[in-house]
Amino acid sequence: MIDSLRKIAADIDNLLANDTFPATVEPAYLREAVLDYPIRGGKRLRPALLVWSCGLLGGDTDAALYPAAAVEVFHNWTLVHDDIIDQDTTRRGVPTCHVKLTGQTRANFALSEDNAVRTGRDFAILAGDLQQGWANDLLLRSAQHGVPAEVTVALGRNLQKLANRDLITGEALDVELSIRDLSGVTSEEIRRMLAGKTGALLRFCTEAGAMIALKETDPARDEVVRLGEFAVKAGIAFQLRDDYLGIFGNFDSLGKPLGSDLRESKATVMLIDALRMATAADRDRLLGLLGRAEYSPAEMSEVRRIMRESGAAAANEAESGALAEQARNILRTFPDSVYRQNMLDLVNYLINRER
Amino acid sequence: MIDSLRKIAADIDNLLANDTFPATVEPAYLREAVLDYPIRGGKRLRPALLVWSCGLLGGDTDAALYPAAAVEVFHNWTLVHDDIIDQDTTRRGVPTCHVKLTGQTRANFALSEDNAVRTGRDFAILAGDLQQGWANDLLLRSAQHGVPAEVTVALGRNLQKLANRDLITGEALDVELSIRDLSGVTSEEIRRMLAGKTGALLRFCTEAGAMIALKETDPARDEVVRLGEFAVKAGIAFQLRDDYLGIFGNFDSLGKPLGSDLRESKATVMLIDALRMATAADRDRLLGLLGRAEYSPAEMSEVRRIMRESGAAAANEAESGALAEQARNILRTFPDSVYRQNMLDLVNYLINRER
Repeated sequence: MIDSLRKIAADIDNLLANDTFPATVEPAYLREAVLDYPIRGGKRLRPALLVWSCGLLGGDTDAALYPAAAVEVFHNWTLVHDDIIDQDTTRRGVPTCHVKLTGQTRANFALSEDNAVRTGRDFAILAGDLQQGWANDLLLRSAQHGVPAEVTVALGRNLQKLANRDLITGEALDVELSIRDLSGVTSEEIRRMLAGKTGALLRFCTEAGAMIALKETDPARDEVVRLGEFAVKAGIAFQLRDDYLGIFGNFDSLGKPLGSDLRESKATVMLIDALRMATAADRDRLLGLLGRAEYSPAEMSEVRRIMRESGAAAANEAESGALAEQARNILRTFPDSVYRQNMLDLVNYLINRER
Repeated sequence: MIDSLRKIAADIDNLLANDTFPATVEPAYLREAVLDYPIRGGKRLRPALLVWSCGLLGGDTDAALYPAAAVEVFHNWTLVHDDIIDQDTTRRGVPTCHVKLTGQTRANFALSEDNAVRTGRDFAILAGDLQQGWANDLLLRSAQHGVPAEVTVALGRNLQKLANRDLITGEALDVELSIRDLSGVTSEEIRRMLAGKTGALLRFCTEAGAMIALKETDPARDEVVRLGEFAVKAGIAFQLRDDYLGIFGNFDSLGKPLGSDLRESKATVMLIDALRMATAADRDRLLGLLGRAEYSPAEMSEVRRIMRESGAAAANEAESGALAEQARNILRTFPDSVYRQNMLDLVNYLINRER
């Protein structure tokens, strides 16, 4: 898997770094902001999933390159706008897009600090908007790189449905969950949010790979649907596992400090289950432990104890394990190939990692 | 022209009000926000321009309906994000998208006022993001409504190039002009900003109409290029005329009070020309008159006198008149038809209106 992943990442890096779409964006600092996240590199798991899904069904994986690049840029614009919404200042240790643009605005123009912050954010809104256009353009260019025009149109429509509408709906539900009282939140709502925010773009990746391989315009075709289900299950399994490791692991996989979900009182399935299933005394203790600026080892131990004794931790692990197994079982209905093995390896890597 | 405009507006109103794309957006207030601007109605000048350009070249105007609807929704998402950036609270007398969403956030959730404002704005960012996806989906659906798939792909790419990249570049230049010292701004920079912010989407409309009529995938084809030039010239002529009427008219056509450009120290071609061409004393007087909260009739008279005596007003009127005439002359190179007449009438209506 690793070799294939590296090869795909290198292809995507190369394509995006040399692409002409952003070249005429002005001012220069906005053009740099448009390129920033897309050329930061990374594992490029979404492009790989798209390319492998195409290969799994016997397709020409070269035809999957532009859609794979499109998915990566699409993912990046959602991160740019998410970072504004979440008011995040760093992403994997590097300043976020709006923070960088605020710095440039502060340096270039005579503005009050408030105005510099606001204008930096405004430019970042536009940077994300431009990246959405860039992603669409990359996808449509598939028609010049081995994907029939009818299939390209169908891919474009599926991108709007899944990666735009369903993903943003998931993001909006996540924003709402962050401002609602936890007592009214159900774990079912969180699963619905995750299916959109995490699952929809992964689903687009596998469905697109399948549609390219089969030269299919209808995403309701059986193989396409099954690979879409695989992606949503694997994505939610990964997210549940991530929530677990955010409490029980050593470091959060996203580079956030352990316990950051607790600090933000983030509604995870495990937290909502623990509040529902714990004793009244533990429930109160857990609520009292939310929203702190920092967590001592003793406080983390207490949270872990409540998560364990309530049964929420075991339920979370059982659910992520079951979803991962269902995802693998879907893959096993397809003929064995190096692509199928890569996808199985990816599921195992995402679920079994311990940080 | 008016009857055709009414017919097109009714078709667009009907299509957008009943479209299924936004139907599964959640939460409900976000779905309403996505629909809000698109179903507020309006003249639908951009869709008309697209439909008429198609008719002008002998195309089936029914095939232009989905692209025309796409253009309207595309225009609306740029307004939603512009209103955030400009901190506008009303649009033609009705609360802007982010203001409405702030009101709903305030009513639905227990948040501080600061947090309600921020969250309302965050939801409005997402509403605009969703509308960009909706616009793309509408455009791609042309392939099911009389536009060949290859042409649909070409339209989609032209939308990203003109309506996304060039338009947003114009918007970003406008943001930059609003925070720069006026003394360093040239009128050429403003024309470049206008070509993007106002011209690019109009250019997409006429080019798309032409490409549909000719079943053409190459926007470099002569008729397509000429109609694109027509649109940019007409758009800049309109904007210059609008700037003039914002000082010399009775009411601003956008429903803003007379002198609002002065209040915002907005860099218009006429203002920059006046600052360059006026006597030193008048230049200082004009600079002293910028950025006030209100303008008395005497102050407006003084501004008008300086605009006139400097020659800036006459230069502005000459330029908008010349551009409008060039636009009309381009139209006259096409065979006479009801569509050509509608487009000539539109230019005359936009340029000759006195408010």
